[in-house]
Amino acid sequence: MSEKIVVGVDIGGTTIKVGICSSEGELLQTYEGPTEVEKGSEAVCNNIAQYARHIVEQSPYNWDQVEGVGIGIAGFLDIPNGIVKLSVNLHFNNVNLKAFLEDKLQKKVLVNNDANVAALGEAWAGAGRGVDNCVCYTLGTGVGGGVIVSGKIVEGFSCMAGELGHMSIVPDLEAIQCACGKMGCLETVSSATGIIRMAKDAVERGDRTSLSFVTNIMAKDVIDAAKAGDEVASRIVNRAAFYLGKSLAAVAVVLNPQRFIIGGGVSNAGDFLFDQIREVFKKVTPDIAQEGVEIVPAILGNNAGIVGAAGLIIRS
Amino acid sequence: MSEKIVVGVDIGGTTIKVGICSSEGELLQTYEGPTEVEKGSEAVCNNIAQYARHIVEQSPYNWDQVEGVGIGIAGFLDIPNGIVKLSVNLHFNNVNLKAFLEDKLQKKVLVNNDANVAALGEAWAGAGRGVDNCVCYTLGTGVGGGVIVSGKIVEGFSCMAGELGHMSIVPDLEAIQCACGKMGCLETVSSATGIIRMAKDAVERGDRTSLSFVTNIMAKDVIDAAKAGDEVASRIVNRAAFYLGKSLAAVAVVLNPQRFIIGGGVSNAGDFLFDQIREVFKKVTPDIAQEGVEIVPAILGNNAGIVGAAGLIIRS
Repeated sequence: MSEKIVVGVDIGGTTIKVGICSSEGELLQTYEGPTEVEKGSEAVCNNIAQYARHIVEQSPYNWDQVEGVGIGIAGFLDIPNGIVKLSVNLHFNNVNLKAFLEDKLQKKVLVNNDANVAALGEAWAGAGRGVDNCVCYTLGTGVGGGVIVSGKIVEGFSCMAGELGHMSIVPDLEAIQCACGKMGCLETVSSATGIIRMAKDAVERGDRTSLSFVTNIMAKDVIDAAKAGDEVASRIVNRAAFYLGKSLAAVAVVLNPQRFIIGGGVSNAGDFLFDQIREVFKKVTPDIAQEGVEIVPAILGNNAGIVGAAGLIIRS
Repeated sequence: MSEKIVVGVDIGGTTIKVGICSSEGELLQTYEGPTEVEKGSEAVCNNIAQYARHIVEQSPYNWDQVEGVGIGIAGFLDIPNGIVKLSVNLHFNNVNLKAFLEDKLQKKVLVNNDANVAALGEAWAGAGRGVDNCVCYTLGTGVGGGVIVSGKIVEGFSCMAGELGHMSIVPDLEAIQCACGKMGCLETVSSATGIIRMAKDAVERGDRTSLSFVTNIMAKDVIDAAKAGDEVASRIVNRAAFYLGKSLAAVAVVLNPQRFIIGGGVSNAGDFLFDQIREVFKKVTPDIAQEGVEIVPAILGNNAGIVGAAGLIIRS
């Protein structure tokens, strides 16, 4: 067994997930251990190094086969230098993760943000396999994104490319403020948080909806109610899909990607949601910019992070 | 003189402009001749070849120094294969321009659309010199665009990247139909045509404006009236700038380019227009995605096309 392998690391606030991938993006082994944020950033960095070594030691592969280690992390990064400028969850403040790990592991280390890395995972080895240009949306607490051009992540001038959730897309008259401080961002309406907010507003307002009998409304409750024909819930899901579709259309004329990949909890609504997004996209995108363009669900689920992190080594 | 040179060709409906550039993007010589559309596509292709040879023969350089010939042309293209699928102005229908010219000239030939090529010209040797990632808008009859990532044109899946004028940005309630058939495209409000239409609408409606004394309203008249304090004209220019600013903000979160470059006739309005665009951009773009990002005027004017066409050879 002399083929090359790559190691991907997905750093979360509670656990650090590591995986071994083949150079074609096949996920061969996974392992996870505690992050131990409370012990400080050096301990977290040591854990990353230890888990990366450990997974290879416990596998049929050996450390010499490792071509490099890729890292996905939430936070503000200096991607070229692999520095975590700020990660609130991890209490990282100007941590030179790349330098630390390259020293510890004696391998090439690349660091990128979690949304970009998940997008690369899908593009490389998931729903975008074989497609050079794709754009990924992750509909979760916020709306994350990643842009892949010619097989590589577009990072942008200050590492802010792919911040699709902060596209100002809701017209001023109906816009509300986003967590980022600006008005009308996509994630105010198309994230789980946005959907829940709109549902709670409707219930508080006294709209007649089955959601008023739900004690702790989740995005799934709203989607289920919409599927069951609840008019208020339908309007909310429709609105989330409308602005998503408009956002995809905007991206389509900027980059004309071959495929849009949509993942995250909200995307589990399936065709019910996707059909609405596709309809809006079709309506507002110039015909020649939508011809052959696909809007598909993500397929790697929670593994997108480790696969994409490993992919950094192959696709850089 | 043994340094390499590149030849750029900008094909218009009336004239074909050719230029010699240094490999650093300095425009060394220019020449132009009639397109002769009426003689048919083969005659036009022969003219291109002849003018390209001619400019070099008349220069202090020789044909052996030519590294390649780049072509910018308006129309629907198969860029990788250099085929002009349809160019209405030139009456081209599935013309394999690359193959024809490579055979005639015995040099590498690259073909791209006029808006992409103008963007590359500015990025390579104009207002974007030294900047890897920039996005260009050309405000003319329509709104053209070009996206440069890592120094290269992003072409997209069906060569439709950079169609910034067709971003659906005007909310449904105030949207009108674009020439592309869709509603609310940027160019319905931010092109010269859009500005003229809004001005004529205002005059017909009976709005009190100095524009009602202008016989054949041009975009410049509207901008001049706005600068002079005409309220109706100010509202129109403000609207054009508002949606441009919103569009730039959308692009900023997708690609986070370092610089936006705005050219074309309407951009001659200068700071009066740019300040309004910058204000909207600042208001709606997340702070970290706008930090250090510049919005600047194009500087190459009509030469952007030939310089960018030459640049195709260097930046591919």
